[in-house]
Formats: sequence, structure tokens, C-alpha cells
Amino acid sequence: MKNRYEFGMEMLRKVDGQAGEEVVAPLGDLGKILAEVFGDIYGRDHLSLREREIATIAMLTVLGKEPQLKVHIRAGLNVGLTPKEIEETIIHTVPYSGFPPAINAMNLLRGMNVQNLDK
Amino acid sequence: MKNRYEFGMEMLRKVDGQAGEEVVAPLGDLGKILAEVFGDIYGRDHLSLREREIATIAMLTVLGKEPQLKVHIRAGLNVGLTPKEIEETIIHTVPYSGFPPAINAMNLLRGMNVQNLDK
Amino acid sequence: MKNRYEFGMEMLRKVDGQAGEEVVAPLGDLGKILAEVFGDIYGRDHLSLREREIATIAMLTVLGKEPQLKVHIRAGLNVGLTPKEIEETIIHTVPYSGFPPAINAMNLLRGMNVQNLDK
Amino acid sequence: MKNRYEFGMEMLRKVDGQAGEEVVAPLGDLGKILAEVFGDIYGRDHLSLREREIATIAMLTVLGKEPQLKVHIRAGLNVGLTPKEIEETIIHTVPYSGFPPAINAMNLLRGMNVQNLDK
Amino acid sequence: MKNRYEFGMEMLRKVDGQAGEEVVAPLGDLGKILAEVFGDIYGRDHLSLREREIATIAMLTVLGKEPQLKVHIRAGLNVGLTPKEIEETIIHTVPYSGFPPAINAMNLLRGMNVQNLDK
Amino acid sequence: MKNRYEFGMEMLRKVDGQAGEEVVAPLGDLGKILAEVFGDIYGRDHLSLREREIATIAMLTVLGKEPQLKVHIRAGLNVGLTPKEIEETIIHTVPYSGFPPAINAMNLLRGMNVQNLDK
Repeated sequence: MKNRYEFGMEMLRKVDGQAGEEVVAPLGDLGKILAEVFGDIYGRDHLSLREREIATIAMLTVLGKEPQLKVHIRAGLNVGLTPKEIEETIIHTVPYSGFPPAINAMNLLRGMNVQNLDK
Repeated sequence: MKNRYEFGMEMLRKVDGQAGEEVVAPLGDLGKILAEVFGDIYGRDHLSLREREIATIAMLTVLGKEPQLKVHIRAGLNVGLTPKEIEETIIHTVPYSGFPPAINAMNLLRGMNVQNLDK
Repeated sequence: MKNRYEFGMEMLRKVDGQAGEEVVAPLGDLGKILAEVFGDIYGRDHLSLREREIATIAMLTVLGKEPQLKVHIRAGLNVGLTPKEIEETIIHTVPYSGFPPAINAMNLLRGMNVQNLDK
Repeated sequence: MKNRYEFGMEMLRKVDGQAGEEVVAPLGDLGKILAEVFGDIYGRDHLSLREREIATIAMLTVLGKEPQLKVHIRAGLNVGLTPKEIEETIIHTVPYSGFPPAINAMNLLRGMNVQNLDK
Repeated sequence: MKNRYEFGMEMLRKVDGQAGEEVVAPLGDLGKILAEVFGDIYGRDHLSLREREIATIAMLTVLGKEPQLKVHIRAGLNVGLTPKEIEETIIHTVPYSGFPPAINAMNLLRGMNVQNLDK
Repeated sequence: MKNRYEFGMEMLRKVDGQAGEEVVAPLGDLGKILAEVFGDIYGRDHLSLREREIATIAMLTVLGKEPQLKVHIRAGLNVGLTPKEIEETIIHTVPYSGFPPAINAMNLLRGMNVQNLDK
């Protein structure tokens, strides 16, 4: 049976891809705890991975946490969000936290050269 | 053709029910602007109302905006989220903003006597 | 010559009126430091008291610090802002931090029965 | 008659100058919404553009939104604030959100080589 | 051997006393996760419980999370902080996040009738 | 007798070393006020410099103020914290503000090449 860390790392690879491992690797004990808690939460029922990433992209936008937002834009694409849906999630934050966080998130998204945003 | 305010109020009633009108009524010009922008955003494509409310509940939890969270828990139920899904959205915020905002949101949710959270 | 504390208390009374003393009184050493720093800042040149209170009401709105916002709404009136100008300052925060802080500030303002907001 | 977007872009050019257009251009739909809401708010009465920029610089300092602060320091100069008044607005944030946001804003201001701050 | 939850609840009782159980009880799955992570973190080496509570009281003050601050003021007393040391921790936040959070925390502390603050 | 500014600069040099002077120098009047308030607070009794830096590192982590965090990691080492204790302070923030601020702080700490974190 997998322990919490192994399960968490597997879930991180599934959701975040290569970037998940790169986040954890340099963090020492904090990385281990991150992987464990990530597995605890993302392994739960009641929300799909797609719904979890919509919530996560919205939260990281309003919190202004751009390094993590970059990882979760990739994660959103991994679990099936389209670039348009990610853009829309960022636009949806405007009534709740105003333009500055949304502008910064949108510039980050558009700088990642994700396709098809202006079709 | 409906103007922005009329469309926004219609969207507010659809999403937030009675609570939407009660939020807007005492706010004067701010209420008018709120209704208009709400309609502009919630009337857009690319995300379902259900997905918009998952994002909104997550954002309001991490922002600690409890009066608005209360309105959007009701809105979430209106657009088809189950109590379990709302609870899970709150739990999903923990890795991103820690326990205090999640605890406060959960106590708010549980104080609203939404059914079936512990089945 | 007045010392920093005496000058600060005088400035607090001038700007915040009676409420300034009521804020400081129960706070022990923190109240003393607050009065001193308040005097240091509000006694400076380059901005009028009216401009300082516009900035302060905007900041306290976006920071969600309602007990202090209540004091500074009164302070704004003391230094010559009209109720309409205070309402407008709250509305002006919307593009920068979204609706929830502005709604909470507006409900606070309107609950204080300041006159003439809907004329 | 100008529509909301056209009026908003005109207001953006008036307040933010060239920088306003550069902010909006890469943002797709978000840029359009930004211009519209900017026009809705900045076109209102009760506060002068000068007072609006004092409030905006104070808010963006406490929110730590440096890309937008840079735009609004230029906007402040456009609408008649002196470098000294902008510096003073940043100093005025200290009692409300402490030194770190004020230090970061001041370093940004001083890095823009706005004249006369130490005369 | 105790599992994570049992260890976490034991640690919560040790640090927070009765209040720890009262926080966890109504929270369902979130309470279980809270107890587990609390045990993971507070059971680590390198900082004493006294040092952990100084950090926690400072963080909860700047975050404005008053229900949790109330629990951790009691926790601080449990692990050996004096009322004066808790007061000083709140005063120490002033340069980092300004007066409003410190004032709110101090009023909370003083409302709990902890002894000896003004001796 | 030293005035507030001289005492504050002395305290800044003692706590932050060379970095303290480099923070203050380019800030004009803000730097003077910073030095004075720093001295007022750090010269108080009831907490050791070591305890003050634990609180400060925790606060700056949750506030996401990385330029100031960098200065206070050096300050922590100056007043006797070990690299392991600083790492542990960052890990201790996780339950209170989640992983993104802790990850950013840990990457900052590890990028400073402080010794012995993985022994």
C-alpha cells in the first residue's frame, strides 16, 4: 500500500505533470508535507479535478500568487480545461477582487503562449 | 431590449434568488453598478453557473468575505451544487490559504443548516 | 513644547474628534504609540487633511478594517468631506478591490445615518 | 454618442496617458471590460481626478500591486499631483498597512526618476 | 501506535486545551484534517511551543483572523507566555502591518480579561 | 542623549546589519520614520530579539513581502536563529496561510545559500 507521500507525489504528477515534481524537489521537509497534503485533498471525492482547478486558478489569482498560478494553469490544461475556460475563470474574479489581480493573472496566462485565446 | 441594469438584476435573481435583490437595494449607486457588472460577467460564456459558483465560493472563502459568502452559498444551491460539493469547495481552499479562512467558512455553512453534510 | 504624544493626541482630537480618544484609551502602550505615530504622519505637509481622509477611507475599505473605517468616516466629515464624497470614495475602490469590500463599507456608511446620500 | 468602451478608452487616455492603452491592448475581453468599468467610475462626479488618484495610489500601495501602481504614479502626475504629493501619499499609508508595502512603493516611485523628491 | 488524528488531537489538547476540541468538533472532515495537520506541524522539532505560539499570534493578528487569535491567545498562556509577552507580540506587528490589525487584536486580548497588562 | 533616529539606526544596524542601512538610505523621509519606529519597537522589553525575528519572519512570509523577508532572514541569523529554526518558522506558517506563501519564502531562503538546511 502506498504511503501518503507516495500517493501525494502520484497525484501531483497526475494533476501538475512535471511541474509538480519540480515544485517539491527543492523544498526539503516542506516539499514532503506539500505532497502529502496535496494527496489528502486532491484524492477526496465530491469535486472533479476540473472543478478543483477552476477553484484553484480563481483563488491563486485573487491571492496574487503568480508562481503557483503558473503551475496551476498548466494543471488546468492537464485535467481538461481549455485556454478559453482558464481565461474566463480569471475574468470571473473581477467582481470579487477587482482588476489588478486579474490583469496580472491574464498577462501571466498570455505570456505562457497557451493557444486560441483570441479566436 | 433590456438595458445592462435590467439584465443584471434578472441574472442576480436567477443566481442569488431573493438575496440578490436584498444586497442591491440599500446600496444606492453602488448597487446599480454591482447589478450591471454582475450581469456583464455572469452572462458570459465558457463557464457554467455551477462552475462560476465553485470559483466564487472558493474566492470568498480565501478573501474572508463572509456576508458575500453567505449569499453565494445560497447561490451555489440555486444553480445545482449540493451541500457536499460546497463543503468540499471549502475544504479545497486549505492548501492555498490555510485553516482559518476555511474554518470560518465552514462554521458559516454549517450555521445555515444546509442538509446532509454528515451523512 | 509639546512632546510627540501630546501633539499626537491633539491631532487625533482634531481629526477623529471624541472617537480618537476612545480608540486610544483602552490600548495601553499600543495606544501611546498610535497617538505618537498619528501625530508624526498627520502633522506632515504636502497633503491636506481632507486628502488624507480620502486616502484613509479608500485604504480601510480595501483592507476590510471596519472598526477603523467607522472612525475615519466620522473623521472625514470632521475635516470637511461631504457624505456624497465619502460614498464616492467607497465606489472608487471597486475597480481596485472588487465589490465585497465596497459593499461592506457602504453598508457601514449607510448604517451610520449620515445624511443626504440619496438626494 | 460614444459607447461605454469608447468613453472608457478616452478616459483611460486622459488619466493614464499612453500607459492606459498599453495596459488594455494585450488583455482581450478583460481589457474591454476594464476600459468600460474605468469609464463608468472615473466619469462620475463628487471626486476630482486628483483626489481619485490619491485614493488609487494609496490603495495600490497597500494592496502591493506594483505594476498597476507604476501606471497610476504616471496617472497622478498627469492629473496634477506633484512628486512630493505622491511620495506623501505613500508615507500616509504607513499607519494603515505598515512599512513593507510603503517601502516597496517608495522604491518603485524613486526608481521611476520622478523629479524633486529630495529638494 | 497512535495514528495521525489521535496524535493531532492530543497535541491540540496540549496546546489549545479545551478550545482545541471545540474548534474541531463541528467541522466534520475539515476538523479531522485540521487535527492531523496540526499534529504534523506542532510535533516537529526546531521551535519550542512557546516560540510557535509567538509566531502564531503574530500571524493571526496580521491576517485579522480573530476567532483563531482568541484560541491562540489561550494557547499562548497554556504553553507559558505571559499576558505581557502576548501584548508585546501584538505591538511587534505594528511596523509590519500597521495599526488596524494590532488595535483589533489588542481589543480582543483586553476583552478576554487576561491579567496584569497594565501593571 | 541619542535622539529617536540615532537610536533607531543603531538598533537597525544591530538587528539587520549592513542591510538595515541599505534599506533606509534611498527612502528619504520614509527611511527616517522607519528607523525611528524600528527603534521604538525593537527597543522595548518583554520579547527577545530572537523571538521578535521569529514573529517577523512568520509575518513577512504570510504577507508575501519578499524583499523585507530577505532582510529579516539575515536579521534572524544575526540575532542567533539557526538556518533550521528559520526553515521551521516558514514551515510553521502552513496551517495559517497555506502553501503558496511558504513555498515562496522557502525558495527565497534556499536561494540565499544559508548553510545546513538538509543535514
